[in-house]
Amino acid sequence: MSKFGMYVKFSAKPGQRDALVQILLDGAAAAQSVKECEIYIVNVSDTEPDTVWVTEVWSHEEAHAASLAQEETKASIQLAMPLIAGVEATQIRPVGGKGYSIA
Amino acid sequence: MSKFGMYVKFSAKPGQRDALVQILLDGAAAAQSVKECEIYIVNVSDTEPDTVWVTEVWSHEEAHAASLAQEETKASIQLAMPLIAGVEATQIRPVGGKGYSIA
Repeated sequence: MSKFGMYVKFSAKPGQRDALVQILLDGAAAAQSVKECEIYIVNVSDTEPDTVWVTEVWSHEEAHAASLAQEETKASIQLAMPLIAGVEATQIRPVGGKGYSIA
Repeated sequence: MSKFGMYVKFSAKPGQRDALVQILLDGAAAAQSVKECEIYIVNVSDTEPDTVWVTEVWSHEEAHAASLAQEETKASIQLAMPLIAGVEATQIRPVGGKGYSIA
């Protein structure tokens, strides 16, 4: 089964980036127990001060979709929404490399 | 010390994507022994058939720069160059999450 990956670019409202980062890190902490979520790394940009990037790798696409339906995820999205001016996602399919789990 | 990350988008010349993927996977295999290279995942796109994305996380920026100066890396770049129509890199700074190493 193919893995599923995304680069998600969040544009935070001015002054809200760090609060958004904290919500996303809390989400990543919750994902520690979700084995299908293999990578969920929160990144900032040194050149775009309102930008937050999330790098996601899931064992398969359905696991990602299922996570969005969880109450905990929905609550986190509700918290984050007021801080966000825009979101763009690039969908990718991981095929291998270092840090790519075989299972 | 801050970590260093990149999303690198390669546009392969028509028909050359899979050959480029293989060169990048060989590079990732060589990076298995480089502890400062924490993630080097090769990805394709199901909607852009000539696109290859590489997700990189390094323990610090200087380690990435040093890797580019290695003879093995230079040889790999020479192999890949004829297959590549364009490259765009987005520099990011990983701050935490699942799959983010603490060290």
